[in-house]
Amino acid sequence: MRIEDLKPLLAPGNRKIVLLVMDGLGGLPMEPGGKTELETAATPNMDRLAAEGILGQMRPISTGITPGSGPAHLSLFGIDPMNEDVGRGVLEAFGVDVPVNKGDIAARGNFCTLDANGLIIDRCAGRISSKEAAPICERLKAIKLPGVEVEIKHIAEFRFVVVLRGAGLSPDLNDTDPERIGTAPLDVVAQNGAADKAAHLFNLWIEEAKKLIKDEPKANGITLRGFATDPCLPSYKELYNLRAACVAQYPMYRGVGRLVGMDAIKFEGDSPSDQFKAVADRWNDYDFFYIHIKQTDSYGEEGNFNGKVEAIECVDAALPTLLALNPDVLIITGDHSTPAKLRGHSWHSVPYLLWAPATVRPDLEKEFGERACMRGGLGHITALDNMPLALAHALRLNKFGA
Amino acid sequence: MRIEDLKPLLAPGNRKIVLLVMDGLGGLPMEPGGKTELETAATPNMDRLAAEGILGQMRPISTGITPGSGPAHLSLFGIDPMNEDVGRGVLEAFGVDVPVNKGDIAARGNFCTLDANGLIIDRCAGRISSKEAAPICERLKAIKLPGVEVEIKHIAEFRFVVVLRGAGLSPDLNDTDPERIGTAPLDVVAQNGAADKAAHLFNLWIEEAKKLIKDEPKANGITLRGFATDPCLPSYKELYNLRAACVAQYPMYRGVGRLVGMDAIKFEGDSPSDQFKAVADRWNDYDFFYIHIKQTDSYGEEGNFNGKVEAIECVDAALPTLLALNPDVLIITGDHSTPAKLRGHSWHSVPYLLWAPATVRPDLEKEFGERACMRGGLGHITALDNMPLALAHALRLNKFGA
Repeated sequence: MRIEDLKPLLAPGNRKIVLLVMDGLGGLPMEPGGKTELETAATPNMDRLAAEGILGQMRPISTGITPGSGPAHLSLFGIDPMNEDVGRGVLEAFGVDVPVNKGDIAARGNFCTLDANGLIIDRCAGRISSKEAAPICERLKAIKLPGVEVEIKHIAEFRFVVVLRGAGLSPDLNDTDPERIGTAPLDVVAQNGAADKAAHLFNLWIEEAKKLIKDEPKANGITLRGFATDPCLPSYKELYNLRAACVAQYPMYRGVGRLVGMDAIKFEGDSPSDQFKAVADRWNDYDFFYIHIKQTDSYGEEGNFNGKVEAIECVDAALPTLLALNPDVLIITGDHSTPAKLRGHSWHSVPYLLWAPATVRPDLEKEFGERACMRGGLGHITALDNMPLALAHALRLNKFGA
Repeated sequence: MRIEDLKPLLAPGNRKIVLLVMDGLGGLPMEPGGKTELETAATPNMDRLAAEGILGQMRPISTGITPGSGPAHLSLFGIDPMNEDVGRGVLEAFGVDVPVNKGDIAARGNFCTLDANGLIIDRCAGRISSKEAAPICERLKAIKLPGVEVEIKHIAEFRFVVVLRGAGLSPDLNDTDPERIGTAPLDVVAQNGAADKAAHLFNLWIEEAKKLIKDEPKANGITLRGFATDPCLPSYKELYNLRAACVAQYPMYRGVGRLVGMDAIKFEGDSPSDQFKAVADRWNDYDFFYIHIKQTDSYGEEGNFNGKVEAIECVDAALPTLLALNPDVLIITGDHSTPAKLRGHSWHSVPYLLWAPATVRPDLEKEFGERACMRGGLGHITALDNMPLALAHALRLNKFGA
């Protein structure tokens, strides 16, 4: 059944759903016969939830496919990423509160370091600090382009977002990052005639920007990628009749939540405990909370097995704050796997834990880990199964047919 | 995700993939409480691979459907047999190096024995030896038809292939084997007007052939089936950017490999060990090796449980030759099940073993067998998942989306 087909079945209700996404949760053993990150972590709270709930393995997109964070999250939210092309530019813009309306073109920008010949010597501008990079972005706000409005906003470190607003723009543009050093940034190239105007304007903007930053020691160059406009996705309210909130540290994940109509809850601090407290503060205002934990993925990307283990343990230790709220449905999973062994996203299935005291059918598994999930009662599901399972266990779906 | 959608994700790589297909591998216990053929076989090498790798059950086509060898193999290769109608004639022709171009019509021919009234008394011509049958095929080369070219080639025993080449031919023709004795072979009948010309020419050819073989004691009749033209399937190079080789004893399996652009490697001998040595000889020339073992299916078809057990053990004993090459990804499975108990192909899922030291997520299973596979970490997959899994574990697929 497609997600759109759920609409006629939606039932009113007051049961609350929490979706706790540990980014890149799935892992691999580093050595033959070893354990994964999640299996290694001491997780007494998650193990209790596993014993009381049901486990499974979740495929983010389809067998063998390694997803980016955007498509992986959209799947978890019930939006088939094979049908919806959501560009990085839009995800990033939504994440830092820069509006992108239909027809506006957003791009993710990176500062880079160029040598005297204009060739890239560092694609990340020496990972320039936010403190250094933010004023450079401020300076770039001076650039005006003919016939369109330009908005630029710093994200973090070497990353920023730039949006053009005006008539006749198309996002069918190639990325300008050559993805290697020793080469000059590419021009923005239109993939078809409809995008010529946007290509011309972005190239003009880059030219002006380079003049303004030419004396910067690290950030004297720019690459742009992920050109995109608002995909106009349906909202959680429309799709599921849920008042949904997003509790994420990283802008991009607030962005992907906003794309489906979630409110991004602001909070102080940057620990899982702070995030769970933010959920507690707004508990009465929403039916659905999406909580995004970034550290698990970051450590995975760095190949830091122990760091990832500790990040998982940190979430587990903070869980009592969340559990004290008595959620009706709590799902703990990842958007994809990021095994420290592979230092990057992977195609492996993601551990999936569904806990719902009033409605779950428990399986025989007693702890939360990849191999327990392989034997879990849910079997293999796909990320698109997540929302129907959540709604069903919250008794928010009526019977189909008589 | 459809196989065509993998193309934009293909990554360059040098990791090698071996697909070892034991034809008809899946089995059944002969007695209640008994073991299957694979569970009975002593397979220390495969058991070690199972312990280090991950298991699953593979559905060849769809639940409850018993596949022929052609569709089962195409699925394993990533070609959906529900969309591609590949006739037996083409598979057989490709297998014996007889070219079939678009518009040519190939048919698989069988010699049969007719009584004085022209009724079939043996559909396989007393399983006439190749030595006896080959000269009969030579004699049939004398037949000329108006306006078309005819090629005939002996395959083995009572089997041969015949190809017509010329304009205006269509393969929409009925098989002439009535599939029972006591009946005359049927005429070639066109299923539509476009096939009238081909029907007429094949009937003419059969008439001439019968005159030439009427005094043969066993092979005095002919049936034709599997009329087909080249389906023009995409190649492994196009689909997966893989240089692929096929190491098969039986012509039909070389044929199905060639249909997807595999080179058929010639080798001396007829044992699994000979096949593995052939792989070793050409290890540097290819990225992907498809190895086909026929005996498991043949014994299954004969209802010879112990013969099938021994055939599996023979493959296991030869495995060290293959493992010494250090393949990056090794998949051991079948194209379908052929339980000795049923003396034929069946719909049961096929045991599936995926071993990839650098990238696999091992499950808890320690031996290769049907019931271990039921608990395997891959769960239930379909044959169309085989290539995405192989490519992913060889790190030959890029990330999907940002």
